[in-house]
Amino acid sequence: MATLVVPAAVPSPAEDAEQLHKAFAGWGTNEHLIISILAHRTAAQRKAIRQAYQETYGEDLLKDLNAELSSDFQRIVFLWTLEPAERDAHLANEATKLLTSNNWIIMEIACTRSSHDLFAVRQAYHARYKKSLEEDVAYKTSGDIRKLLVPLVTAFRYEGEEVSMMLAKSEAKKLREKITDKAHADDDLIRILTTRSKAQLSATLNHYNNEFGNPINKDLKSDPNDEYLKLLRGAIKCLTAPEKYFEKTLRLAIKGLGTDEWALTRVVATRAEVDMERIKEYYYKRNSVRLDRAIAGDTSGDYEKMLLALIGHGSE
Amino acid sequence: MATLVVPAAVPSPAEDAEQLHKAFAGWGTNEHLIISILAHRTAAQRKAIRQAYQETYGEDLLKDLNAELSSDFQRIVFLWTLEPAERDAHLANEATKLLTSNNWIIMEIACTRSSHDLFAVRQAYHARYKKSLEEDVAYKTSGDIRKLLVPLVTAFRYEGEEVSMMLAKSEAKKLREKITDKAHADDDLIRILTTRSKAQLSATLNHYNNEFGNPINKDLKSDPNDEYLKLLRGAIKCLTAPEKYFEKTLRLAIKGLGTDEWALTRVVATRAEVDMERIKEYYYKRNSVRLDRAIAGDTSGDYEKMLLALIGHGSE
Repeated sequence: MATLVVPAAVPSPAEDAEQLHKAFAGWGTNEHLIISILAHRTAAQRKAIRQAYQETYGEDLLKDLNAELSSDFQRIVFLWTLEPAERDAHLANEATKLLTSNNWIIMEIACTRSSHDLFAVRQAYHARYKKSLEEDVAYKTSGDIRKLLVPLVTAFRYEGEEVSMMLAKSEAKKLREKITDKAHADDDLIRILTTRSKAQLSATLNHYNNEFGNPINKDLKSDPNDEYLKLLRGAIKCLTAPEKYFEKTLRLAIKGLGTDEWALTRVVATRAEVDMERIKEYYYKRNSVRLDRAIAGDTSGDYEKMLLALIGHGSE
Repeated sequence: MATLVVPAAVPSPAEDAEQLHKAFAGWGTNEHLIISILAHRTAAQRKAIRQAYQETYGEDLLKDLNAELSSDFQRIVFLWTLEPAERDAHLANEATKLLTSNNWIIMEIACTRSSHDLFAVRQAYHARYKKSLEEDVAYKTSGDIRKLLVPLVTAFRYEGEEVSMMLAKSEAKKLREKITDKAHADDDLIRILTTRSKAQLSATLNHYNNEFGNPINKDLKSDPNDEYLKLLRGAIKCLTAPEKYFEKTLRLAIKGLGTDEWALTRVVATRAEVDMERIKEYYYKRNSVRLDRAIAGDTSGDYEKMLLALIGHGSE
């Protein structure tokens, strides 16, 4: 379901590193060459290129890329080139900082990654920032937002397909009771959403919908501007239908007069190697416009070229 | 600091497996032989023996041990033979069950294991019980106990030695404010204790002691019978001075008329390969009696022999 396109014959990491080094040489930078290499290599291949670059030139490829490139193109090349766990740790750390603080990004990482991938992010966070992800998240948040966000980032959900229908019924009922009482930050409601496996949660929420006549997220819209409720609905969407969540994030990033490049870059860089194919399908279904067209209409230059390469444009 | 004594020349896993198989053969069981092998092998060696036994005899060594042995001797041989992460997962699961429910054991595992070891327990829990440790803990607890216990078991604390004295001061002050207000389950108090690295926490609690004249645990004794406060004090002890915590657990297990074999077995099985040497030192310091004497005075038979072998008796 990835959109990343890797050529049939891939040069060696040393050859790729050499080409990238050439792209930086002399006057100007050969952006085309950079895109033609990095946008068409897997995470493992990019890692090997970084290592080869370090060994041959004694420099970190990421530093050289950041020095040569600028603006949105710089950011997408930088994020894309990072290893997935490092990249998520970087995004999460950014999201705990004052000026770039963003609970949504932390929620998105916690809820859409696999249990093992989320743990890898926590390891990468230790290695890079000399502290734990949860201590930063807990320190920078408070109240109901903290009460929801901390168990989300520390979860190590079971990933098997086993589902208990008895549990689905009793916990759907419990959720309904709490929502009816407007106890949206109730301990049990948060416990169910933050600890159950995604398979179990889907069974519980399907039962909720069947039994009580509404998808749970509709019942959680009592106050559409409440930040906590928005985050809660976002988490439920990320846990049960991540493609729909990402489609909406892209739609909101593209629509209107300006473009939210920050969101567009993040979603493309983090999903191109995961489920971008399905996100594209949803996008077309929901908007009657292909995602590559929408992106091409809203962006330009090397940034546009990099985005389109990552979502597999021109390869169909 | 382990008390486990491994002979200079260790037989191959296949030879050990064969000897164990012989110990089960014919009338009666050769308990002496079982102790002489299993009580003197590292976790990696025991694992290799289990594998060799499975390959040669087509049976799980643990099952055969459980069938041959009984009572307290059975339990310590069983717990000891398990791999550390499997053993902790087993103990934690037992502690979430109705009849053997015990928040202390869950707290003990969460607070005295290294971050990576605790994560290994969570992985072993998935594999063995097809669900997550935190979902069982959260489901079986409530109120303040849950509020403390869930972040403890899901923590992945940073393990570096870096300490911020500024943070130590500000968080010691915060803790003091909350304790003065008797807000013992306050969000920030729990956040500090459940997310900070052990090194940072020690710095903070040292500052607390210096600045406010009492160790924090003394200030948390306002109601000595409050279950939540007891667990909170236990957690602080486990996080900052695990040897003292285990010394006390052993002391209480041994003292008085009866013996708490459940606790004695658990502490010996889980610490013999970790820090039992230091626990013995503390025990002697605190009780003026050597731990092996105390155990010999309170237990008997093969159970006694196994305990003494694991705490290194006769090897000094």
